[in-house]
Amino acid sequence: MESLLLSRRDLEFLLYDWLDVEALCHAPRHADHGRETFDAALDTCERIATDLFAPHYQKADREEPRFDGTAVELIEEIGPAVRGFADAGLLAATLDYDMGGMQLPHVVASAGMAYLYAANVATAAYPVLTMGNASLLLAHGTPAQIEAFALPELQGRFLGTMCLSEPQAGSSLGDIQTRAEPDGESLLGPRYRLTGSKMWISGGDHELADTIVHLVLAKVPGADGKLPPGTRGISLFIVPRHLVDADGTVGARNDVQLAGINHKMGYRGTVNCLLAFGEGTRFRPEGRAGAIGYRVGAEGEGLAAMFHMMNEARIGVGLGATALGYTAYLHALDYARTRPQGRPLAERDPSQPQVPIIRHPDVRRMLLAQKAYVEGALAFSLYCAKLVDDASLATDDDERRRLGLLLDLLTPIAKSWPSQWCLAANDLAIQVHGGYGYTREYKVEQLYRDNRLNPIHEGAHGIQALDLLGRKVAAGGGEALALFAARVEATMVEGRATSTWCDEADALGARLARLVAVTRDLHASGDPGAMLSNATPYLEAFGHVALAWTWLGQALATSDRDDDFSRGKQQAARWFFGWELPKVDVALALLERNDGTVLSMQEAMF
Amino acid sequence: MESLLLSRRDLEFLLYDWLDVEALCHAPRHADHGRETFDAALDTCERIATDLFAPHYQKADREEPRFDGTAVELIEEIGPAVRGFADAGLLAATLDYDMGGMQLPHVVASAGMAYLYAANVATAAYPVLTMGNASLLLAHGTPAQIEAFALPELQGRFLGTMCLSEPQAGSSLGDIQTRAEPDGESLLGPRYRLTGSKMWISGGDHELADTIVHLVLAKVPGADGKLPPGTRGISLFIVPRHLVDADGTVGARNDVQLAGINHKMGYRGTVNCLLAFGEGTRFRPEGRAGAIGYRVGAEGEGLAAMFHMMNEARIGVGLGATALGYTAYLHALDYARTRPQGRPLAERDPSQPQVPIIRHPDVRRMLLAQKAYVEGALAFSLYCAKLVDDASLATDDDERRRLGLLLDLLTPIAKSWPSQWCLAANDLAIQVHGGYGYTREYKVEQLYRDNRLNPIHEGAHGIQALDLLGRKVAAGGGEALALFAARVEATMVEGRATSTWCDEADALGARLARLVAVTRDLHASGDPGAMLSNATPYLEAFGHVALAWTWLGQALATSDRDDDFSRGKQQAARWFFGWELPKVDVALALLERNDGTVLSMQEAMF
Repeated sequence: MESLLLSRRDLEFLLYDWLDVEALCHAPRHADHGRETFDAALDTCERIATDLFAPHYQKADREEPRFDGTAVELIEEIGPAVRGFADAGLLAATLDYDMGGMQLPHVVASAGMAYLYAANVATAAYPVLTMGNASLLLAHGTPAQIEAFALPELQGRFLGTMCLSEPQAGSSLGDIQTRAEPDGESLLGPRYRLTGSKMWISGGDHELADTIVHLVLAKVPGADGKLPPGTRGISLFIVPRHLVDADGTVGARNDVQLAGINHKMGYRGTVNCLLAFGEGTRFRPEGRAGAIGYRVGAEGEGLAAMFHMMNEARIGVGLGATALGYTAYLHALDYARTRPQGRPLAERDPSQPQVPIIRHPDVRRMLLAQKAYVEGALAFSLYCAKLVDDASLATDDDERRRLGLLLDLLTPIAKSWPSQWCLAANDLAIQVHGGYGYTREYKVEQLYRDNRLNPIHEGAHGIQALDLLGRKVAAGGGEALALFAARVEATMVEGRATSTWCDEADALGARLARLVAVTRDLHASGDPGAMLSNATPYLEAFGHVALAWTWLGQALATSDRDDDFSRGKQQAARWFFGWELPKVDVALALLERNDGTVLSMQEAMF
Repeated sequence: MESLLLSRRDLEFLLYDWLDVEALCHAPRHADHGRETFDAALDTCERIATDLFAPHYQKADREEPRFDGTAVELIEEIGPAVRGFADAGLLAATLDYDMGGMQLPHVVASAGMAYLYAANVATAAYPVLTMGNASLLLAHGTPAQIEAFALPELQGRFLGTMCLSEPQAGSSLGDIQTRAEPDGESLLGPRYRLTGSKMWISGGDHELADTIVHLVLAKVPGADGKLPPGTRGISLFIVPRHLVDADGTVGARNDVQLAGINHKMGYRGTVNCLLAFGEGTRFRPEGRAGAIGYRVGAEGEGLAAMFHMMNEARIGVGLGATALGYTAYLHALDYARTRPQGRPLAERDPSQPQVPIIRHPDVRRMLLAQKAYVEGALAFSLYCAKLVDDASLATDDDERRRLGLLLDLLTPIAKSWPSQWCLAANDLAIQVHGGYGYTREYKVEQLYRDNRLNPIHEGAHGIQALDLLGRKVAAGGGEALALFAARVEATMVEGRATSTWCDEADALGARLARLVAVTRDLHASGDPGAMLSNATPYLEAFGHVALAWTWLGQALATSDRDDDFSRGKQQAARWFFGWELPKVDVALALLERNDGTVLSMQEAMF
């Protein structure tokens, strides 16, 4: 049976034909690599996903993490899956050889990760968080911190978390109240005692590893004993669940305690916690309350360090959303090909046998929409992942800066578009299954529930919109947007040179021009409140333009071929241009007239 | 605390100001009624919803129906809720006094039911299914069948189900395989023995009532022993869970047996069953296998009888979807008014306290969208419910026929639009709650899951589309569509006479004209397969036009007022015209060019 996780055919088309990732091997860093090693990495990921992650996908949903008063209990399949992932060396896939890594390009590692996300996103969260955590330490930690925390994470001995939100401060990180009091120096860096509550901590407490490395945002009080207001007062701390010696030896428990488990709509296999730091009720390291933490980087630069990893984390969220939509699409396709129901309209002879539902146009409409959403999202996610490689491999400083600007610009789209449209694909996958899709016997309803987290976490949809319109498109004095426009125009030029895709190229060009113009006008208006009040339709219009570009690129990359796969790509591209791209006109029109309906809606009028 | 089920202010505006339901009291049937009795009925519904239905909403989701090998176990709160509803006389609210009814207009009873749906749609399903069942028997049953089955249902002693689908036949009812063999005559009508499986039976097995009255579609074999193909061979049968004497005495179990409980994404409090008829393994009435059933109406006319109630059932589904979206909106509004987070963009001083999130434009955008969806859907649902009254009260035969045509036409919209857009409102309600909305501590994620059923059951979304474009708009040689257009035009004329709403009236007029023209062209094309291949965008475009009309009507009904409520209605109308109505242009354009992208997508290309 063909795997229903991802289409390997599509993945290979995107990586090798469309993105030409083999060209990355011209760089010395990837000189040992080639299509063979890339394929082997994909094989490994697919195998681990199939053998260790997929089998407990539904069980982990049914049997949620529980706290028995002493420890968090997870189903027994999660540990071996995480260990299998670590043992295959995948935690360090993109890292240097001398860190035990494989020096795989980020884009190839991302393609591999998509298998894990598709198989079991909740179990994948444990290694993914750990990789993000370790990467941050590699970039900002001292050698001693890397030795004591990052290396054991990369070996899978420790797992990691990111502790940003608090119950009263989610999107508004400047309002965090966790306090870090200086507590002397140590081999692991300046030491502090932390007190406060952290909310929504995925992987926050469990027994899967020797310890858990929490990366915690907190504020150091000023001379007046008060916490500095706003984001500038935030520092970053390593707060391990257990005390850890400089040589990595794990000791007694630190003063970090589970205060509650969140019971979620989906993503249930990932234990999500409220953590209490510094309560001193159960654990009192060195005899007193206060969670011991080691500062990473300079005081007040915690948020910058955390956001250093944000592009990759957000592209990762988008990729996860993509994978959840993608596997649901493949399940729906499989169901539609095998489930008999009804007859074609033109030949409604009830004495004839029923036909597979894929023969009904409305089912094909739903499948084609899913295909356009999920394959488009995968293409765009991998495009952005390759930008990470391009930027890090660029030998020219200015080129690296430009690639960084472009990546920054596209990151809100990479995060939000799949979170919105691959969720829509999940919804359609349920609909294709009819009543069966609404039951927990089929996976599609769980895939929907799991994916519903993605527009919320790692910067909610509306936050991505503010980031894109308020900061990213204006970055470099408009250079970022110009870089994007230049890439779109290059594809348009290519499209206009064909007889088949010139209309689509023109249609895309018209929207790009309006998008660029409205961006300029909005920023020229000088009223940030009014400008940003329609940021979300702006984000969504931008996203559709970017995805239309991605589809035009895929169509052009297959335009000289006539196999079924290529014709399917072209049909999906045509569908996206005919059924989806025109939707942006509504958003562009309201942005152009600076529609004030939302802004003038008063509280009392609801 | 204000109830978060529905806005009574809105309900009263719609009923009394917009629909003028008091005018129905001029009809002799409702002569005893007036605003006072209508209000009392709404009060009763709200009280029962609040006291008996809402409190176990989340518990019924957590503790699903279970089969212990002997009986289906429901949580203990469901029985008293159903009894409380019955004891208040609500099962017969719209029926004649001599049936123990209240002779309430259908539209007022519907408004009352919306409270029950909002409070606990899964528990409400038990009485709702019973009312539909009893209504069908009142219309098509013999006096003896009514006496033995319908009257006990209306008293709440028996509960009812509808048994249509089978595991291999959902949307394609012509393919049912349940067999009914003649078994003589009886006081309760022609008797049969039924064998077969019925799937998706809500309320299919439980101990809430003395018995359960199953209304079952089955086929009577021909002389050759084979079942006739297609829908024309379908007959309708009463198959009680227990044998019932003509005097209503409940006897031994009939040969109807639970074969499985479906575990659903939501709607979990409603036990949903696979039922086996005629297996003869546990129950053998009169000593042999075969479920005893009594035919209702003539042989071969079962589907027509079942569909007799379909308009009301489908408007009921739409109303339920509306209520689920509506209460979620009120919860999101309440949350947004009380949850502090962040600061306005224009005054980002981190030393100032955080503000309630309703002050952020993007949150207001989400609330305004929800308001436009749910209040629009409630208005449209009640409009259609009033058409049921208007048609049944019409003294002129031709007027009744015309009202029936209009109601038939609008029913697919009444079912599908709220199922799609109030579900979208549920999604936004989750988003407003942020991470909290993703947890089961708040109701919004359950409201989403419950509502996700509505685009599937009682005729899936795509089936509604085929019904609308394939049959309804062509009914009466185009008369149905002309009747709708005339009503829309009347509102447009009113709008054009104002300075405030003339643009909106024109915008609506332009879309209506295109919709009418494209309907004519599609039907003139003569190729039903091609015509219907884009039926779903047609349904969705039609729905948005109908809802824009509803919003224009609400705006005009408040246009001479300047209170917050009225200004809110006007703002929501403006938002719908600016942000939603233009979306139909994409669908209209693809219908006008008879877009063949879906039709030409081949199976192998996926």
